[in-house]
Amino acid sequence: MALQSGEKPMFTGYISSKPNSSWTLLGLRLVAFLATAAATLVMLLNKQTKTFVVATIGTTPVNVTLTAKFHHTPAFVFFVIANGVASIHNLVMIMVDLLGSKLDYKDLRFAMIAILDMVNVALVSGGATAAAFMAELGKNGNSHARWDKICDKFGKFCDQGGGALIASFIALALMLLISVMSIIKLLNSHKSHSVLPN
Amino acid sequence: MALQSGEKPMFTGYISSKPNSSWTLLGLRLVAFLATAAATLVMLLNKQTKTFVVATIGTTPVNVTLTAKFHHTPAFVFFVIANGVASIHNLVMIMVDLLGSKLDYKDLRFAMIAILDMVNVALVSGGATAAAFMAELGKNGNSHARWDKICDKFGKFCDQGGGALIASFIALALMLLISVMSIIKLLNSHKSHSVLPN
Repeated sequence: MALQSGEKPMFTGYISSKPNSSWTLLGLRLVAFLATAAATLVMLLNKQTKTFVVATIGTTPVNVTLTAKFHHTPAFVFFVIANGVASIHNLVMIMVDLLGSKLDYKDLRFAMIAILDMVNVALVSGGATAAAFMAELGKNGNSHARWDKICDKFGKFCDQGGGALIASFIALALMLLISVMSIIKLLNSHKSHSVLPN
Repeated sequence: MALQSGEKPMFTGYISSKPNSSWTLLGLRLVAFLATAAATLVMLLNKQTKTFVVATIGTTPVNVTLTAKFHHTPAFVFFVIANGVASIHNLVMIMVDLLGSKLDYKDLRFAMIAILDMVNVALVSGGATAAAFMAELGKNGNSHARWDKICDKFGKFCDQGGGALIASFIALALMLLISVMSIIKLLNSHKSHSVLPN
């Protein structure tokens, strides 16, 4: 929609007036929301109970039942908080994007979104990276610190945690892309300030 | 230095033409660089050798010498890489800020800086958070995973790592602040486009 400076755009409705780049951003934001929400839920529901035979008295085995839960590891708790907060942020941003075109102060809004996006990128990056290194420790152990691997015993727990990690890193990549696009949008907004509706 | 639109600024030299906000940003950037560089070096040099008596044969003690090094823990290696890259980034940005005022494409430059700042915020956030949770494990252990604490044996190693972590989190806070200021600078740059030199 190329408009000359000073020419007023014809609004036939909100949907048709939204430029393609905004729809791309909205789509990316929706996928990022789904990825952070999936990461939060998959980690939140991560639990495995297993019974081990630790001794045998006569012919009677002595069993110990152990449960691996995400909240036993602080890094996984932070992972859930970080991805949960980012989910809420992405959901709010989607609503702002859908409703906010009717609001004024467009540049300030773009700047606020860019800043909030960046803070959430930092949060998800911290949560995903910390959980990834803790997962690596669970998978391989650390002989120097005498920390044994636990994934040989709790395979399902580790696989499910791995799934949550993949979802979170996909979300991180998308949120980085969204942040870059937010900054570029801020850069371009002035150029089309008086001619384009959003 | 308030200039009316259209009025040409009088240049008495580069230094006096730089607005106060740019000097604040440059100062913050310098402190952030020092913090990331300190975090990198303090972690890089983190090493403690200790001799333990593991048994006694007759009256002769059997000693084992163990060394704790940062590179035994993948999270600490990533911490060094992340803070090292951020140090280089901050140093390059300081040089761009000092020399770049002579370059054109100011808005594009501000946008590139804002994007690179954000990527480095994500990097330092990941490095610092992962190392913090690994340090917490070293300090407190994790009884569920049967990972014993090691800071009771390697106190100096843990204290030095803690120092590096504090430096990195100070850098992260400063880099978040710088990124926010970069985005606001991008927002404001158009308003003062034709009247202020930088």
